[in-house]
Amino acid sequence: MYSIAIHGGAGAVPAELFAKDQGRAYQASLSKVLDESYAILDRGGSSLDAVTAAVRSLEDDPLFNAGHGAALTREGWAELDAAVMEGKEQRAGAVASVRHVRNPVELARKVMEKSRHVLLVGTGAEEFAMEEGITLVPNTYFRTDERRDQLASEQRGRRVSDLMPKGAIEGGASGGSPGGSPGRLDPPVAHALIGMQGTVGAVALDKHGNLAAATSTGGMTNKRQGRVGDSPIIGAGTYAKNGVCAVSATGHGEYFIRAVAAYHIASGVEFRGMSLAEAARELIHVRIPTMGGNGGIIAIDARGEIVMDFNTDGMFRGARNSTGFREVAIKRG
Amino acid sequence: MYSIAIHGGAGAVPAELFAKDQGRAYQASLSKVLDESYAILDRGGSSLDAVTAAVRSLEDDPLFNAGHGAALTREGWAELDAAVMEGKEQRAGAVASVRHVRNPVELARKVMEKSRHVLLVGTGAEEFAMEEGITLVPNTYFRTDERRDQLASEQRGRRVSDLMPKGAIEGGASGGSPGGSPGRLDPPVAHALIGMQGTVGAVALDKHGNLAAATSTGGMTNKRQGRVGDSPIIGAGTYAKNGVCAVSATGHGEYFIRAVAAYHIASGVEFRGMSLAEAARELIHVRIPTMGGNGGIIAIDARGEIVMDFNTDGMFRGARNSTGFREVAIKRG
Repeated sequence: MYSIAIHGGAGAVPAELFAKDQGRAYQASLSKVLDESYAILDRGGSSLDAVTAAVRSLEDDPLFNAGHGAALTREGWAELDAAVMEGKEQRAGAVASVRHVRNPVELARKVMEKSRHVLLVGTGAEEFAMEEGITLVPNTYFRTDERRDQLASEQRGRRVSDLMPKGAIEGGASGGSPGGSPGRLDPPVAHALIGMQGTVGAVALDKHGNLAAATSTGGMTNKRQGRVGDSPIIGAGTYAKNGVCAVSATGHGEYFIRAVAAYHIASGVEFRGMSLAEAARELIHVRIPTMGGNGGIIAIDARGEIVMDFNTDGMFRGARNSTGFREVAIKRG
Repeated sequence: MYSIAIHGGAGAVPAELFAKDQGRAYQASLSKVLDESYAILDRGGSSLDAVTAAVRSLEDDPLFNAGHGAALTREGWAELDAAVMEGKEQRAGAVASVRHVRNPVELARKVMEKSRHVLLVGTGAEEFAMEEGITLVPNTYFRTDERRDQLASEQRGRRVSDLMPKGAIEGGASGGSPGGSPGRLDPPVAHALIGMQGTVGAVALDKHGNLAAATSTGGMTNKRQGRVGDSPIIGAGTYAKNGVCAVSATGHGEYFIRAVAAYHIASGVEFRGMSLAEAARELIHVRIPTMGGNGGIIAIDARGEIVMDFNTDGMFRGARNSTGFREVAIKRG
């Protein structure tokens, strides 16, 4: 069996949004990316190529918080992080805090394949990009009106976190217009609620038995300049090892770093006799919430079994395998 | 029992050096740092304070590759990484690729205590430093003549790696003057051989049963601008969890990142029924060398037992506990 799973962030998913076209737009995008990256596996391509292509497409889509349409820093910059890891030799590449690279996941892959390093950050990562022939783009390329609105809302004190524990939105704890009824969301805030503080990622097992994982993000809205979350941290947001599993995480990155989230799952499978579903469940429903964090993961084990688990209201996700299984979903269940 | 261990890097240790005063200088510095940080534990201070103080002192000492006397990038800059983690609540702070912060470990601790983030990099980390009242220092503060000589040697193609597998130096594979006999080392190269590509770190268990770990480094000589190794990566170079262990690593950082080294040891202790010594041995003598890397770790378990293991010729190290045990050593055995 070969299989792929993708995600576009986890968080609260207000029901209001699905009365509009927005839910459909997200599902259409996830479907397209899922099928295109699955096709790479189907024609014998590598899991590394499939996850890179999936994440690149999600980076290019302004609906998701990565690449074009990334969340903005306190000062209004897009600062991007990404990582890729392949399971056969466990090579890895990652970049963090880059401002001018159109597809951070492609730069992460170049770090893996063309440098002797694993992680490059900031202007050094961009020097490397230019040496590798990548044309830099202005930071304005990444910034969308929706993300500017989202930053402004956040800075006006209306904290629109889609990573609040399940139920926080319904209870009116965040996201509502000041003074308005809890259920009312003004359009920029409503937009912001989906995908905010999200991340995109993909995991795959190919016909050759090789696992791979990739993750990319703009990080959290209103973050400090230079803040790096779990996405580009091997073992936290991204991990792959043949014979074990591939993992890509999304959520409140600081908790995923401290929990060494992706490797915690992998070590559960490799050393503790846990199924991938059990290991993911322990992380997502015990370890992370006990620390106070939330989010989700997608993962694939050595047999191609897909696990997508989250402790938030929803997670943008898609999964497909060679037995004919195919799923694109946002809400739980 | 309460205890502390410190390290100042692992690598090849040519016997020639110990005919000179240099070996004594390293031992004297390690002894002083060990005793001063042990005294913090002895008077009831926290393990977090002890490891921060130890690493700060090692950063200030030009003999070691961290802070003043850090290894230099390809372009001749000092770029510094550091992390700290405490085991009780598993809070963590880290900085990477900073150029103007005298004591990166102190900034890492401020990230942990004063920000909502775990990892800040580059100029964003320095903005945070200034907001916290830290006076920046010019990059020239960090650069010593020895590190400039070392960079020049490296760039002339005489690769002086103290992280070659044990025996590489003795075989004349590196470090010798070009055309000279294998045993001859010119002074800058000789100096460079000790501590080069090293890292400094400390782990401690205090009277209150709390574990902590801290690590700081200038990274590898001739590294790319923006390259980040394992030191500031929670789970790779630095990790602490009460009831389990605290770990600080040194070595070829890219391998320690890919192996998720520190957490691999911790998960062995927490979940696989291994002693700390067994878990460290598996990492240092099986997992890392199988990938092609080398280095060492210091670690302390929940009972205060100290493990210091390395697969290189030597590791600058010191350990002391409340039963009266005290050791400062460089070579094996």
